[in-house]
Amino acid sequence: NHVLVLGYGDLTEPILEELTERGTTYVVVTDDEREASRLSDRDISVLAADPSDVAPLETVRIGDARAIVVATNDDAADALSILTARQLNPDVRIVAAATQRENVDKLRRAGADHVISPATLGGHLLVDSAFGADSEAVADEIMEESEPTAKESVDGGVPGGDVTEGTNGEDAEKSER
Amino acid sequence: NHVLVLGYGDLTEPILEELTERGTTYVVVTDDEREASRLSDRDISVLAADPSDVAPLETVRIGDARAIVVATNDDAADALSILTARQLNPDVRIVAAATQRENVDKLRRAGADHVISPATLGGHLLVDSAFGADSEAVADEIMEESEPTAKESVDGGVPGGDVTEGTNGEDAEKSER
Ligand SMILES: [Ca+2]
Ligand SMILES: [Ca+2]
Repeated sequence: NHVLVLGYGDLTEPILEELTERGTTYVVVTDDEREASRLSDRDISVLAADPSDVAPLETVRIGDARAIVVATNDDAADALSILTARQLNPDVRIVAAATQRENVDKLRRAGADHVISPATLGGHLLVDSAFGADSEAVADEIMEESEPTAKESVDGGVPGGDVTEGTNGEDAEKSER
Repeated sequence: NHVLVLGYGDLTEPILEELTERGTTYVVVTDDEREASRLSDRDISVLAADPSDVAPLETVRIGDARAIVVATNDDAADALSILTARQLNPDVRIVAAATQRENVDKLRRAGADHVISPATLGGHLLVDSAFGADSEAVADEIMEESEPTAKESVDGGVPGGDVTEGTNGEDAEKSER
């Protein structure tokens, strides 16, 4: 009943913070060895491997996963990860972010249940704000609504496999908030 | 009473669409000659020049601008554009997007009135969605709220200067929606 985060990109840290605040158990799978090592240093569960390969996803028990989040800066890599994940678990909820908004439909066709475009959202909010609209309030509201009370992560990792286990980095990055 | 869009990045096309839907007159200033040429081919007002230089911003009449939108993928370049724009027009509303969320405060200190982090927003919405929350509804709501009834752009460009004038690309990119 854990969440898999496939790949590492600009959205990953906000995603990990949000998961940590929810007290959710999660594992990151990324073939970026440098980021994998950094995450591991922060006691975050991470498997340094290609998230579009079958073996690593089986290692992190994709069959038992509650949800899968796919959001790197490389939409082609995201598409491959989604295709593999969907093949291995037809029923799990998969959500993704398209870096190039023209890839939203492609990621959906690859098997994601929901695909967002941060650029499109950002562009809309910015123009609203340029005209002095209440988009600041809207954005703030989203952030508040989606921020449950932070609670301790009771279960520190995913059982089994070659996963480097940890406490999901409860204290990491807090200074940036 | 026009809007200046400084630089070109992943958020620019959504921004231009939103401005076009509002019937707003706008000018893009970018030193990316390839993108400038493409925009010009679509009859979008564009000045191919460094948006952090004084002369180009004076050319596009920054003193009369209604608002300034700064959102490239290069936060350092954005900071320079904001500093120059603020110096030339102390009262205009400046909004910006931080590609790296740790730059939100820096862009604010450079002189932006409001800075968003699309990565933070996207991360929050994705995790909400991973848990099957109503974030899809929230995201859809934002998009709808910020979409006024599309109207014709009656005034096609900004008067004067070396700006390539046009109709703000009313028909451009419509097929992507
Ligand atoms: Ca992506
Ligand atoms: Ca930026």
